[in-house]
This record gives sequence, C-alpha cells and structure tokens, in this order.
Amino acid sequence: MLYSVNMNRLEKQIDFIIEIDGLKKIIRKNYLSDCARLENSAEHSWYFAIAAMIMAEHGPPGLDINKVIMMALIHDIVEIDAGDLLVFDEEGKPKQEEKEKQAAERLFGILPEDQSVLFRSLWQQFEESISHEARYAKALDRFSAFILNYSTDGKAWREHNVTASMIREKISDMRSMVPMLWEYCSRKLDELVERKLLSP
Amino acid sequence: MLYSVNMNRLEKQIDFIIEIDGLKKIIRKNYLSDCARLENSAEHSWYFAIAAMIMAEHGPPGLDINKVIMMALIHDIVEIDAGDLLVFDEEGKPKQEEKEKQAAERLFGILPEDQSVLFRSLWQQFEESISHEARYAKALDRFSAFILNYSTDGKAWREHNVTASMIREKISDMRSMVPMLWEYCSRKLDELVERKLLSP
Repeated sequence: MLYSVNMNRLEKQIDFIIEIDGLKKIIRKNYLSDCARLENSAEHSWYFAIAAMIMAEHGPPGLDINKVIMMALIHDIVEIDAGDLLVFDEEGKPKQEEKEKQAAERLFGILPEDQSVLFRSLWQQFEESISHEARYAKALDRFSAFILNYSTDGKAWREHNVTASMIREKISDMRSMVPMLWEYCSRKLDELVERKLLSP
Repeated sequence: MLYSVNMNRLEKQIDFIIEIDGLKKIIRKNYLSDCARLENSAEHSWYFAIAAMIMAEHGPPGLDINKVIMMALIHDIVEIDAGDLLVFDEEGKPKQEEKEKQAAERLFGILPEDQSVLFRSLWQQFEESISHEARYAKALDRFSAFILNYSTDGKAWREHNVTASMIREKISDMRSMVPMLWEYCSRKLDELVERKLLSP
C-alpha cells in the first residue's frame, strides 16, 4: 500500500519532468553571444542560475542563494503554456500575466500537492519581487540577458527598437541589489551609445 | 583601490559567464521528448538540476540537495572544450577524461581563484563519485537522459546499438541512491524490450 502511494507520487513527479522538457522549445528574443541563434528558455534558466551563483557575493548580505537558484530554475516554466514576451512589451503585459497565472496552475498542478504549493509560491515571490531573494533573482535574470545582448553589440535591442534608457529602467533592481553589476552595465550601455549601436 | 580590485574580480566572473554560453552549442546524443531535435548540454544541465530537486526526497537521508544542484549546473561545462561523448563509448573514455581535465583547468581557471577551486572541486567530486551527493547526482544525470530516451521509445538507444543490459549497468547508481527510480526505470526497460524496441 505504502509502496503504491509512493509510486503514485513518483509518477506525478515524472509526469512533471517530462512536461517541462517543453521549455527547451520556447524561443526568447535575444541571441547567443556569437549570434548563431536565439536562446531558448531552458538554457537561459541554466545560465541565469549559474550567473546568480557566481555573483552572490555582490548581492545583499544574508542572501539565501539556494532559494535564488531554485527560483531561477523554475521561473520560466510557465512559458511552456504562455510563451515568451519581450521584457519591454508593456502593452502585452496584462494579458501575459493572466496567461502565466493559468499556466502556473496547470503546470505546477501536475506535481504532488506539497511540491506544487512550493513551486507556485517560489514562482509568485519571484514575479512579485516580494523578497530580497526575488529582487536579487530579478536583477540576475536581467543580467544574464544583458550580457548576451552586450556581447552581440546590442543586435536584439536594435531589432526591437530598445533604447539605453529603456534598458536602464528594466535593470533598475541591480542598482540596489547588486550595485557593482549596475555600474558595470551602465558603463557598457554608455559605450554602446557612444559607438552608435544603441539609441540613448 | 578596493574598488578596482573588486572590479577586476567582477570582470573575471563576467568573462567566465560569457565563456560558458558555449555550452548551449554542445549537442548531446539524445533527443528531446518529441524527437524534434537533439538536446544540448546547457538545457540538459537545467533539466538535470530540476529533476534532482524534485526527486531529492527519494534519495539517501541527509542529502545536501543544494550541493547536488550546484554539481548539476556545472558538471558539463568541461564539454565546451572537450565535447560530449556517448556515455556507452568505453573506448573513447580515457582520452575524453584527459581532455576534460585540461578543460576544467582552462575553463574554471577563468574565475577568481577561490571560485575556481570550488568549482573544480565540485566537478571532481561528481566525476569521481566520491560523496553521497555526487552519487545521487550521477543517478539523476542518468535519469534525466533516461526519461527522454524512454519518451522517444528508445530512438537514440537504437541508433547507437545500446542494449537494456548496457543501460542497466550505466544507471546502477540509482539502485542504491534512489531505489524507487531504479525500479521505475527497470520496468520501463522491460517494457521496451517486450515491445521489441530495445535489445535485451
């Protein structure tokens, strides 16, 4: 009896793992550093998690980096149903938020109840920036896209008519959460503007 | 002075982050669950990390899951220089190990010294299976490939002339580390053999 209860639990977990394979098919708006192709959301999640791990020392004191890494690993899973929206697309945002909420219900709902609750809560904390960890995670999510966009001389930014001041606004969590990263990115934006690769 | 020392440290960390973008170009031997294309090593690392997180409760007692997740995130970085080798290719193994050692030196060497030492040590522990965490991680690394291969009715296994008994040997860490997963995978192998999709 205990065995079959556990097997049932295991099967829900495996169903979830098979389902989230779909995140590898969700294509983002930014290129890899060599412009070979656009990035997908699964490999982005890996990249974001590892960047968060490496940069933790520059974050706020007392940061629970393990919680941040968990957020990074699950933050985009909702895109399997909702798709990826350009971070600068303010018009599409309310509709996207609705789609993501429904996606969180369905996708995390595949897991056993306790894990479903945990994952939904982590995802929500991240979305609503309601903890130090969530705000640090947001900053590193932006940074992991920033560094690829910078490496490609801002190719995807130009394609989407994104300006330096729009980027500064989107990465503003860095200013309080990871000041050194904010300074680094600011200088890189100035450089791209100076080289006429990005509008101010 | 302190500022420029820290900036120098930050720049090494950023160089590393840019360098490991290359893992997204390393193509593995297994397909995604819908056979659309082969998986790459960056998205596999994400998949492995999240599977390890979800399955932790079925692992050995006292498991440090955060350490496992860190191992998952970095375990394949050496492939940027060394490439991916089929897990069943025993002939290519000694040469691959040499290439991976050199890759670890070069790639982790980009980081500041303390992080370089930490990452190299985690990678080595994983490679040599010298802790509970490393053995659990190995089991979940295998599982995250197994579940995709099973989902595609063993397509990649057949392409590489892999038999059920070769797979059983490769996933043997599951038996002691995650017995429930071992039983699950054993049954799935029996099923594929019965359906004549896999040689015994």
